[in-house]
This record gives sequence, C-alpha cells and structure tokens, in this order.
Amino acid sequence: MSWPELPEVTHIIGREEIDLYAELSGDYNPLHMDAEFAAKTRFGTVIAHGPIGLQTVFEAVGSWLGDEAGGVRIDVLYRGPVRLGDAVTFLADSPQEHAGDLVFTARCVNQNGDEVLQALVVIPRHIAPRKD
Amino acid sequence: MSWPELPEVTHIIGREEIDLYAELSGDYNPLHMDAEFAAKTRFGTVIAHGPIGLQTVFEAVGSWLGDEAGGVRIDVLYRGPVRLGDAVTFLADSPQEHAGDLVFTARCVNQNGDEVLQALVVIPRHIAPRKD
Repeated sequence: MSWPELPEVTHIIGREEIDLYAELSGDYNPLHMDAEFAAKTRFGTVIAHGPIGLQTVFEAVGSWLGDEAGGVRIDVLYRGPVRLGDAVTFLADSPQEHAGDLVFTARCVNQNGDEVLQALVVIPRHIAPRKD
Repeated sequence: MSWPELPEVTHIIGREEIDLYAELSGDYNPLHMDAEFAAKTRFGTVIAHGPIGLQTVFEAVGSWLGDEAGGVRIDVLYRGPVRLGDAVTFLADSPQEHAGDLVFTARCVNQNGDEVLQALVVIPRHIAPRKD
C-alpha cells in the first residue's frame, strides 16, 4: 500500500493573475505592475508577488486532501523570482510518515527548471487520504 | 538597540476578497461561494479560502523588509476557519536572533480573539532591517 500521488500542478502567471493579486493584497509595487520600471531593476522584467507561486502548492495539497485542509502546516522558502509569463510547476516527493504525521517536501520550478520555491508540508495523520 | 517592531495588520475579509481569491486560484468550492450551501456545513457560514488569512502575514513581513523578501521562510499552521466578514489581525512577537537568522513567531486572530493561523518566520540576517 502506498499514499496516492500528489498531483503535478502548473500555473501560467499572466498579467491577470498579477492584477488580481494586487487587488487582493493592495500591493501595487511597480515591480509587479509597471514593465518600464521593472525593466530597470535587477530582475529586468515584471515579477509576480511572492505568494502567487504558492497557489500551486495550495491547489495540489487542497486537491489531495479534499475539504480537510485545517491543521496542515506548510513551510515555504522563496528561492527565486517568478516572472510575468512564467509557468510555475509544483513537484512533490512521496509522502513519508513521521511522528504520526504525513510529511512531504516539494518544489516549484519555472519552465527553465529553475527552482522558485521550496515547501515542506506536514499533514496530521487523521486527515490524510487512505493508502491505495 | 532593538529591532523595529513588526506592524500590526488587520484585514476585513469581505465578499470581494473571497471572489478575487476564487478567480486567482480557480477554487470555487461552494463553501466559499454559496451562503445557502455553507449554512448547512459544520461552519454554518461562508468561510474564506485558507490562504486569504495569510495576506496579513505577507503584508506585515513585506512592509518590515521592504523589497528584500527573497530567502524568507514562512511556516504556516492553519488553526481555524476565517468566516466572511471576519477581521483578521496579525500579531507578531519580537524577533530573536537564532543561528545567524532573525526568527519570530506570529499569530492571526479574528475579532473574537480566536486564533486562525500561526506563523513562524525566518529571515536571513543580511536582508533584515537595521536595529534602532
């Protein structure tokens, strides 16, 4: 018996996602909003708000768990910028049992394979899916 | 000398925030969207998507750090539901130095003082603000 696989999830980060997140967060930093401004920074192009890449993690974990996401711990390490137009893909390692919880590591990469985010996810045993 | 205080941040979670997050994430679960459906669940009312409460953490940490948010680690534990209309307030403890990093714990509470989220934030020393 083994745990069901975590899904692979890819989001393409377009202008619409960045605009929606700006409205949600109130963060209209020109680095995210203004291509001309962003071109002069060390990033060279518009970058997404940091939490946007996290959506892939939330989506993957949410679909793995169904409606039982309460009590989940997610530990995030931002590793590199997500640029406008990037495709961010969530890739998870197999869950392991640890101290009564399910634990897995995951990473988000862009279309060039560059790591943009690492995540450690801890799921209380009683809300985990059943083994196959 | 001491570290500048982390700001206290309060967000009121309205229908607009939930609709924006649904559009961003593609998560239109009726628990978030449909008051009649949500009334029949154990929550009794529409609840926000889990990551919405996290905005207070991102806003507080982002404003404390300015534009240097790369390399920050945020460890999140969801503790309870955020209901439509709730006011979510981010409250941080004082940063401590640990193994060359700055570390602080924080929690988000609703207007009744119920904890909805805990966060552990680790900030590499070289991107931290200066001590006063």
